Amino acid sequence: MRIAVLGTGMVGRAIAARAAELGHQVTIGTRDVAATRDRGGDHAAWAAQHPEVGLARYADATADADLVVNATTGDGSLPALTAAGEDNLAGKVLLDIANPLDFSAGFPPTLSVLNTDSLGERIQRAFPRLKVVKALNTLTADLMVHPRQLADGDHTVFVSGDDEGAKKTVTELLTSFGHTDVIDLGDISTARGTEMLLPIWLRLYGRLGTGIFNVKIVR
Amino acid sequence: MRIAVLGTGMVGRAIAARAAELGHQVTIGTRDVAATRDRGGDHAAWAAQHPEVGLARYADATADADLVVNATTGDGSLPALTAAGEDNLAGKVLLDIANPLDFSAGFPPTLSVLNTDSLGERIQRAFPRLKVVKALNTLTADLMVHPRQLADGDHTVFVSGDDEGAKKTVTELLTSFGHTDVIDLGDISTARGTEMLLPIWLRLYGRLGTGIFNVKIVR
Repeated sequence: MRIAVLGTGMVGRAIAARAAELGHQVTIGTRDVAATRDRGGDHAAWAAQHPEVGLARYADATADADLVVNATTGDGSLPALTAAGEDNLAGKVLLDIANPLDFSAGFPPTLSVLNTDSLGERIQRAFPRLKVVKALNTLTADLMVHPRQLADGDHTVFVSGDDEGAKKTVTELLTSFGHTDVIDLGDISTARGTEMLLPIWLRLYGRLGTGIFNVKIVR
Repeated sequence: MRIAVLGTGMVGRAIAARAAELGHQVTIGTRDVAATRDRGGDHAAWAAQHPEVGLARYADATADADLVVNATTGDGSLPALTAAGEDNLAGKVLLDIANPLDFSAGFPPTLSVLNTDSLGERIQRAFPRLKVVKALNTLTADLMVHPRQLADGDHTVFVSGDDEGAKKTVTELLTSFGHTDVIDLGDISTARGTEMLLPIWLRLYGRLGTGIFNVKIVR
């Protein structure tokens, strides 16, 4: 597949590298290509190690993609998708990994949307022709793409979305990453449940001293 | 121990029966003893099978208890504890199982307190001399007290509270029920995390068609 990954942070890089490794044609989308290139540091080193991953403006990365990944921050999601362009997104699958974390009052962050709404639903409402699938927002970046490093993959990830075909596409991608237990929670409103896992995730992260853990739904 | 269980619903009965079975002296607390007795139906049948479990008004059940269990509803928690009486509760451990579920807009319920506060914290603030430990609010009643029926107990429960000794007491009780993995999340504010697990729990309940499931923190 041609995959556009919106976001140049840890999550975006992890998804981009793994998808490229699996043979997909991957372009990272960013607001300002020159600024991302010139930022140096982490990104420059990473980009040098991954010459197979392209870098383009949000709209250019998205235009000919088969699947788009939202790996931006919660606040940055709607602006990035708006910059990608409604027509470029129309009819496409969006794997939405973002969480609406609000760090304005320090750590631990709170959620800026929850309970009766979710970021996944907001994105779906703002872009009705996009097929939003919330997934992978419940675990750390490295575990998203290399799940077998923990208990040989014996833990759970979730998909939420209104379009069955889109959930199937995302589930196949997750399985190709190594995930063994993907639970389809239902429509996009079930993203409330996975986004609201963040508070306990953050406490566990502090308590366990590592992000390499995940929930398993034992049943 | 002498245990007072506030609440006559499924959770209260499950805890009361199991604690009595393990040799504790258990009294169920209710607002109106005569009304609970006369209600007939479920409770009458259950009480007939458990003559070892007492029934008393909230204050009478609590007065000489070593440990108090809040198995009321979210809305009913502060009124029940107020009826139990601040002096009766002072210095005691409260195992708080209640979740602040709001069914006013139908199913699935939302949470009436969350994100920057929790029911556990509200109870702790209202009764500063009580040692509140949030626990067992993340799984179905029968699994709270008979965890070994699922994967031989290979799943996780959590404790949140400000008092280390009180968390130790509750952890020992959970272990006596059969729990094998009790994670201490930290102070009572970490109850936000476990109460906010309810939305995904409710969706999983619908999806799996049974309440006999639980999370395991794989690490």
